[in-house]
Amino acid sequence: MRNLRLDLCYDGTRYRGWQRLGDREDTIQGRLETALSRILGEPIQVSGSGRTDAGVHARGQVASFHCESLMACEDIQNALRRYLPEDIGIYSCKEAAPRFHARLSAREKTYLYRLWVSPEPCVFQRRYVTVLSERLDLAAMEKAAGYLVGEHDFSAFCGNARMKKSTVRTLTSIRIDCDGPELHLRYTGNGFLQGMARILTGTLVEVGRGDRSPESIPELFGKKRAEAGFLAPPQGLCLEEVRY
Amino acid sequence: MRNLRLDLCYDGTRYRGWQRLGDREDTIQGRLETALSRILGEPIQVSGSGRTDAGVHARGQVASFHCESLMACEDIQNALRRYLPEDIGIYSCKEAAPRFHARLSAREKTYLYRLWVSPEPCVFQRRYVTVLSERLDLAAMEKAAGYLVGEHDFSAFCGNARMKKSTVRTLTSIRIDCDGPELHLRYTGNGFLQGMARILTGTLVEVGRGDRSPESIPELFGKKRAEAGFLAPPQGLCLEEVRY
Repeated sequence: MRNLRLDLCYDGTRYRGWQRLGDREDTIQGRLETALSRILGEPIQVSGSGRTDAGVHARGQVASFHCESLMACEDIQNALRRYLPEDIGIYSCKEAAPRFHARLSAREKTYLYRLWVSPEPCVFQRRYVTVLSERLDLAAMEKAAGYLVGEHDFSAFCGNARMKKSTVRTLTSIRIDCDGPELHLRYTGNGFLQGMARILTGTLVEVGRGDRSPESIPELFGKKRAEAGFLAPPQGLCLEEVRY
Repeated sequence: MRNLRLDLCYDGTRYRGWQRLGDREDTIQGRLETALSRILGEPIQVSGSGRTDAGVHARGQVASFHCESLMACEDIQNALRRYLPEDIGIYSCKEAAPRFHARLSAREKTYLYRLWVSPEPCVFQRRYVTVLSERLDLAAMEKAAGYLVGEHDFSAFCGNARMKKSTVRTLTSIRIDCDGPELHLRYTGNGFLQGMARILTGTLVEVGRGDRSPESIPELFGKKRAEAGFLAPPQGLCLEEVRY
């Protein structure tokens, strides 16, 4: 069996997220598996580096799959580009090491959350940002981000109430940058719980609004979901990069 | 009567262009007039700096209108922002000099045409670029652009076959820039005929493909529409700026 790696991007606006839901055609995994199965003439199961929620985008998603077909990688890549809708883009299809697995081999991921913090209209970026009208205290957000970085039990930042495995993760860095009318929150870590990047964003926004103090952040570790901030909307979030 | 100036932008994807068509709601002018008439409680007619075609965008459109209402400009601006859909953005509403007219007072306009010339997928910019898969000879396009600049009879670059007025216009400059995966064609001139920026683009692309020589460009002045290049698709075009 060959083991292949796909690098891809997508506009998540009209999808129910990464994970295939039965025979529905409105997930990224579903689209990829349908396309690959037809192109290669055999049933294909794709593993993503992680699931993105409904409406979340990706500029640097990675997937892997096994196949029997001997079709050249470049031909698979070109067939996928022709076959997939214009909101899913294939950067490359390449031969991977036999033990490479898009999810299990991932070392680190970076997610970017884009907040539109200007009173100017955001017509052309509206599908990729979340608009906030209040002023945010960036110094307080930076301080709160400092408390979040490190190895912690992020149970309060997990959207899956029935999560039975460990909720301990390591956040390597949180970068906060102003980019014209936008505020960018960039999270890098060794793994992200369901909804984690969006709940981190909601919590930092609450700190920025003054509704929560930076010093209260360490009290959240190991606590219940209700203790942390709101779940920021999906369209501002993008999976930027996965490192192996 | 007060005379007011609106500065606005729009994503033209789902509109039939600037110009109102009867009572239809799918034009930018129609949307503005309906919104302003309700906000101000009197029938409002809006003049744009120029008509953009169906599917063409604007980052710097200017419009003007007269009204009797004494509502403060800032209140009109805020009401418009609430009332208009998210693909039409209002930068400002301001008091204008009594004789200001968005179209008649315009001195110069700049249109930007964005071509996606990379084999990489263009998922996030797909509504605002035209994808070209062939390689283009930029030196030949620069040379052709040099012939186009100046005062000429642009009859061959006019999409309106029944145009009875003069088709003489002055193109002040054409700038050709590479911007990552994109090629930008930026046209500045004192006035643009219907479809002119798109036909200039089609003609320059034909030069870039080698289907037409730069030296043949001067032969087009004063000729029929069929002599010039193809009408490039609307979604790559954006009205960038109007100067008064």
